[in-house]
Parts: sequence; structure tokens; C-alpha cells
Amino acid sequence: MDRTNGAPTNGARKAGVARPSSPGRRAFLRTGAGVAGAAAAGAVLGKSGPAAAAAEADPAHLPPNVPWWTQYLGDGVAARPYGLPSPHEAHVVRRNVEWLTATTESSVNFTPIQDLHGFVTPNGVCFERHHGGTTEVNPVDYRLMINGLVDTPKIFSMEDIFRFPVESRFYFLECAANTGMEWRGAQLNGVQFTHGMIHCVQYTGVPLRVILDQVGVKPNGTWLLAEGGDSSGMHRSVPLEKALDDAMLAFAMNGEMLRPENGYPLRLVLPGWEGNMWVKWIRRIEVGDQPWHTREETSKYTDLLANGKARFFTWEMDAKSVITGPCPEKPVLHKGVNQIKGLAWSGRGRIKEVHVSTDGGRNWMQARLPDPVLPKCLTCFNAEFEWNGEEVLLQSRAVDETGYVQPTMQALQEVRGVNSIYHNNSIQTWLVNKTGEVENVRLG
Amino acid sequence: MDRTNGAPTNGARKAGVARPSSPGRRAFLRTGAGVAGAAAAGAVLGKSGPAAAAAEADPAHLPPNVPWWTQYLGDGVAARPYGLPSPHEAHVVRRNVEWLTATTESSVNFTPIQDLHGFVTPNGVCFERHHGGTTEVNPVDYRLMINGLVDTPKIFSMEDIFRFPVESRFYFLECAANTGMEWRGAQLNGVQFTHGMIHCVQYTGVPLRVILDQVGVKPNGTWLLAEGGDSSGMHRSVPLEKALDDAMLAFAMNGEMLRPENGYPLRLVLPGWEGNMWVKWIRRIEVGDQPWHTREETSKYTDLLANGKARFFTWEMDAKSVITGPCPEKPVLHKGVNQIKGLAWSGRGRIKEVHVSTDGGRNWMQARLPDPVLPKCLTCFNAEFEWNGEEVLLQSRAVDETGYVQPTMQALQEVRGVNSIYHNNSIQTWLVNKTGEVENVRLG
Repeated sequence: MDRTNGAPTNGARKAGVARPSSPGRRAFLRTGAGVAGAAAAGAVLGKSGPAAAAAEADPAHLPPNVPWWTQYLGDGVAARPYGLPSPHEAHVVRRNVEWLTATTESSVNFTPIQDLHGFVTPNGVCFERHHGGTTEVNPVDYRLMINGLVDTPKIFSMEDIFRFPVESRFYFLECAANTGMEWRGAQLNGVQFTHGMIHCVQYTGVPLRVILDQVGVKPNGTWLLAEGGDSSGMHRSVPLEKALDDAMLAFAMNGEMLRPENGYPLRLVLPGWEGNMWVKWIRRIEVGDQPWHTREETSKYTDLLANGKARFFTWEMDAKSVITGPCPEKPVLHKGVNQIKGLAWSGRGRIKEVHVSTDGGRNWMQARLPDPVLPKCLTCFNAEFEWNGEEVLLQSRAVDETGYVQPTMQALQEVRGVNSIYHNNSIQTWLVNKTGEVENVRLG
Repeated sequence: MDRTNGAPTNGARKAGVARPSSPGRRAFLRTGAGVAGAAAAGAVLGKSGPAAAAAEADPAHLPPNVPWWTQYLGDGVAARPYGLPSPHEAHVVRRNVEWLTATTESSVNFTPIQDLHGFVTPNGVCFERHHGGTTEVNPVDYRLMINGLVDTPKIFSMEDIFRFPVESRFYFLECAANTGMEWRGAQLNGVQFTHGMIHCVQYTGVPLRVILDQVGVKPNGTWLLAEGGDSSGMHRSVPLEKALDDAMLAFAMNGEMLRPENGYPLRLVLPGWEGNMWVKWIRRIEVGDQPWHTREETSKYTDLLANGKARFFTWEMDAKSVITGPCPEKPVLHKGVNQIKGLAWSGRGRIKEVHVSTDGGRNWMQARLPDPVLPKCLTCFNAEFEWNGEEVLLQSRAVDETGYVQPTMQALQEVRGVNSIYHNNSIQTWLVNKTGEVENVRLG
């Protein structure tokens, strides 16, 4: 290294020759799949993907060739007006489960939480749950009506909505059925499928109380009916108290307008409450003096107990956490110190502590919670664990600021029975076996 | 409305018939551009886009037809493994300026901040600045070397990097040249071009001090050279003090792995410091006992003063703010109460206050700063202003937690002269003329 001009010694300065197109990308496009593409791109270097993956952090294992990417001019700034992830990340996608529902229009897909970092979910992979498919709304023709027990019923266009003061807050959105297939045992081998009906974004919108001020709620108005503009006409009853607290009519997520599948151009946001109530493509809010008892809050989204009665209006999401690495999709590859990483959340406010166990819950240690820890938002946690090739039972346990402690499945079922589909916030167990593979198991 | 079953009265329940494909989307694809597409989609409803846009918030102006989107099943959950914005948002893209640079590979494009909401910048539109184009790195073959004044030089693979504890923090990244074309007057008519060399995302990565602990910096090691893996071999000197404070080696932004144009798979993050130092595709860190004085920190990225001398190592970004609506791209369409919205930031920590003026800086009022306000992160502000059709001079002024106040251009030039390209953090003025159009103007 020449310290006077900083010129590198490996020939990278021979750049400046435009390349017609990237060999790595061409190889990727030719082979299609992400893993195959990565291997093919590796082969350009004269070094196969798996061989490179096995290399240790040791100068002697460096590829002997200069990587091709130092030798070419890359694409210019006009190439991608709206960018996309690297082709090497093509495996980070939402996935659905074909046998789960009769049609994809009334179904769900799952966020790939095993491949995410931090607590923001990228808009491209926020899980979807539809009752009539992704509705495509033209924002110019879109209208929101507010009627019922109000002084002045009104209809708002998006231009009207944009003239009110806005808030931008990070909130998690969890489907009440997240982890629901696990009630009767370990069913699904992958954290994407056991816990992936969740996302967390920065929602921007107008506080609902600001909009309600415009119409004037009458003294006997105590409930709202929120109605979606899709073909399912999804609607839910919401108590006025929540509407006046932290509810929001959101038009943006993570800086840009809502994605069509997440309610473009306007959705209801009910921080900390179950996702099905966050009505998408919201077209009408009616103010009434009692709940409506719609199909979605009676025959659906209620929790059937052992005695045949059902819990209903179980809106608030209890504290919960899950380890997203290691997990079935992310085996332990390394003997020695590894990271445990995961996500925790509570519909009641901030996460106070997360504990992790490597012995199935007999002993617990405190995980780190890196800043910022925000209320009703996903919270990252991490901790070290040393793996010596023996079997390990990994668990995490969240505690929120109200003191609520995430329960075991056994404790939860003692109260709720085994009929329910919804609100399973119990502790998840991953078995790391002697090969480092990770399995979804049920303890006790 | 029948309150017993919640069935809507407008015929939307006639849904359930699968449609082959969306008329709105087909119209959009046929016409290509976003605005034309929106108008065409409006025509499906028998109501043109502009007519609908002019409709007031009044039931009498509701479109007489039921919107088509309530009458069809939308796309199912398998349709988009990785989602994209609505076709109606096709105007929200990065843009470059053709005359600005000789080639697009050594150029910049600009974040469309006039169309964003909240402080998170979506990954798809984070501005790019390249010296050799977008380098496409294969993460399997990627290596980071640390050498120089260290006890044990080491080479790290991405798998090695993933085994360290991580942080996830929101930081803005601003190019030192942002607003640089405005030094000598009002040059560019659009906030995307005057202030769009900025983005703000949740970066996830390993604190640099953790990696330096692995190699052991020798007692006389006081500076780092960070070297990029692209064809330009971009490198910059960084004082060890910053590396041990809040510097990070980041692999993810907004939850997913870095985009190729933002340094995939690993980049340096230097919170609050000018963007060119956040070396992308970082391949090597050398520890030394003095700065290297590379080309990028001597002939470039220094600030030429009136007396011919240059300020150098001007790393920290001073407090700055700008109104992103109204702005040249967002005229005032409405007489009466409108929102002023904008962004503020400081490389020294938190924004404490933002003031806005509607009379060119003679009178100031306090803007709202909605939670959360985070250090070295974009901060949203908003305030009402009433427009009666007269000319208005809009300004914003940021104050950070150190007490630093964003200066006028006149005050800045008294100290810095007019030769500089970099570090223009002066107050921006927008003239709202009598038609509601907004112009970039220079006062005094």
C-alpha cells in the first residue's frame, strides 16, 4: 500500500471499462432460483458457492482471484428508478400454505421473519390476510364516509385527508391467528409459518380523533363500525374509547403510500390490537351506541373455550416473543459462540425484558434489548449461546411493562382449553439436534 | 343498514365472482404513465380523474356508480411473493439530472422526499451516489480484511459477521453535496433536487468496535482507512475515536439486507457524518497512525473558502431542515387551512425545535415534532398555515440539542464565501405565488 496516494495494490484500479451486463446477474437470471443463481455467480470466480461458504476466516482461504465486481463499472444511477433487493436475496419472500385455505383470495401469507434484521418489516414482505383478495383502489375516486350518531355526516377524499396534521409511529400488526396452528402441538416446521403473521412498519396517518372532531360524535355515540371497501365488505365494531386514544387512519407505511395489499389508500390502525380489526381500504365509519356483532366478531375471531362458551372482543394482543435465529430455517452451523436473535412484542405497551433459555425453560438469562424500545412495536433481542454439538432446547419469554409474563403452552391451555385458533402467545420451543438442525417441538 | 347482520346496502355483497384481471391495472399498463393511468382507471367508473379530484367533501359529489373495486375478488396471496407499490404511485421514484455529470456510473440520483411520509425512506427510493456504478457482490465470496496496526490481521466472511451481536438504529445519511447547487442562488425548482441527497433507514449491523476488538488495535493505531470493493476503490480516513463511538458495519436496512446500490452485503455507517465516508461494499479496513489524505478527502469533499484555502475533514453534518410540502412539486391547491410538513436533522444528535415562517423569516412559529424524535435521524415536523391566495414566503429553521441554529444563506456565505459545493445547510425559501404554484427563490 502506497500511503501517499492510497492506491490499492490488487489491480482494482484497472476499472473504468464499461461492462455490457453483469455476469453474476446474467447467471442468476439464467438459472432462475436464488440458491442456484448464487452458486452460478460463484462459479464465475472459479470457486463454487459451497466451497466458499466452508472457508474459515483465515487469509489462506481467500479466493485466489480478484473478485469480478472490482473490475467493472456497475449500473449507473438511471438504471433503477425504484430499486429491488439483490438477486442473492430472492429467497426472502412471503409464502402461503396451499392446504390451509380453499382459495388464495380468502387466505394468508407469511412474513419471512427468519431472514429479517431489526424491527422494521420491509413493505415488500409484510404478510397479507385477505377476505376477498387484494383490492385495487383508485385514490382519485376513493371516498371515506362517516355517518351515524354524528352532528354532521361527511365524506372525505384523499386530498381532504392530507390536509390534517399527521403522526408517524412504529406499530406491530399481528393476526389473532398467528401461531394458531400450534395450539394442539408442533405442527409447522418453520418460524415463517408458526409466527410470520406479523409485521411492523412506521405508519403515517391522521389520528382518528381528529377526523371524528370534524363530524362531531353525539353524546350517545360509544361504538364505531369500520367497514372495508373490498368485495368482502369486512367490518368490525370498535369502542369509541380506542378511537379517541391512539387509533389512526393511515395512508403510508415505511415512508411511502400503503401497498395495495395493505389497504391502499387508507386503512384503520388500532395499535396493539388484533390485525383483522385494522380494516383495509376503509370506506365507511358509522357511529352507534352498541357493538354490531358482525360475522367477523361472532362466528370468527372469537376464542372457543373447553365449556363451549366463547371469549369475544379479545382485541388486545398479549405479550409474546419468538427466536428467529436459530430456527428451523436457520440451523446452527458453527460450534462455539453463536447469536440467539428474536422479536418480542406486547399490545399493552413496551417490552420490559426478554429471557432466553437453552435448557427448555429450567434456567433463564436476560437478553439484550438494543435501542430503541418503542411501545406496541416489535422489539429486537439478542444473546450469545455456546454450542458444543449437544442437543439444546431454545426458548424465549417476554415480559411487558405491565408485568405480564409470556406463558407456557401448558399454562395457557389450563385456562383456554384446546379448541381455540386465536391468541396463542405461548412460549415457543426449538430443539437444536446434534447435527445443528432445528426442529419445532412441544414440551410437557 | 341492517344492524342485525351488518350487511351493507350498496350491492357490494354481489362480490365473489372472480375477475380475470383488474380493469384498473390493465388500463394502467396500457397507458404506461401514472397520471394517464389514473385518469384511465377513473374512466372505468364513468367519471374522469380531474373531475373527481375537484369534488368537495360533500355527499352530493359522490360518484353515482359503485366503485368497481368493491365488485370483484382481488388477487390472492400467492400473487406477489415480493410486493410493489400501487401503479397509482409510479411517480414516486428516484430521479437523476442528466446534465449534472458526464456518466451515470459516477453520478447521483435523488430521493423523492416531496412524496414521502414519516421519517423512514423506503429502500426502493433511497438516493444513490456512485463513483463506479452499482457493484454487485456475491455474498458467498465476499470478504472483509482488517490489517495494519493490529495484533492479529483477520479476514471475515458474512457468516463470521452474522455471529456478532447486532444493533438496529435509525440514522439519516446525507451527501455533503446535498443542496450544493444552491450555493450561488436558486438553481433547481424541486425539493427532490435541492434536498433529495438524503435518506433515513433502520440500519442493522455490528458495532465497529466489536470487530476491532477481534483484531486488537495497537496503542499507536489512531486512524482507519475504509476501502470500498467497487471499481472506484473509494476510500476515506476515519479517526479511531468515531469507530469506537457509534460506527457500525451494517448489512441490513429497513429489515432486509442492504440493496446492491447501497453497499450489499456490508457498508460502513458513520452516524451524523457526511455520506461519502459511509464506504459501501467495504472490503478492507487498515489501521494506521495518521490520516491517508486520499483523493476523496483532499481534491474532493473539501470546502474551498474565499481566500483559496480549503476546510477539510468537515465530517459532521450541521443541523438543517426543509419544507417538503408545499414545495415546487406540491403546489397549494386549497384556500383555507393547509399543512406545512417537512424534515429536520442534525449530525450532532436530536432535533430540539423547528420553526416555520410564512413571511420570509420575519416571524417564526413553533412546528410540531411528532414522536419519536431520535438522535442523528430525520425528524418530521408539521404546522398549519392558512392561505388566502396572496404570495407567501415559506421557510423552516432547525435547532438541535446542542443549541445550534440553522443559518440563513447570507450568514453562511459571510463565513464560507461562495466557492464551496459542500455543506450548504442554510434555510430554504419557497415562494407560494398567487396561483398556488411554488417557486424556489433566494432572499436578500
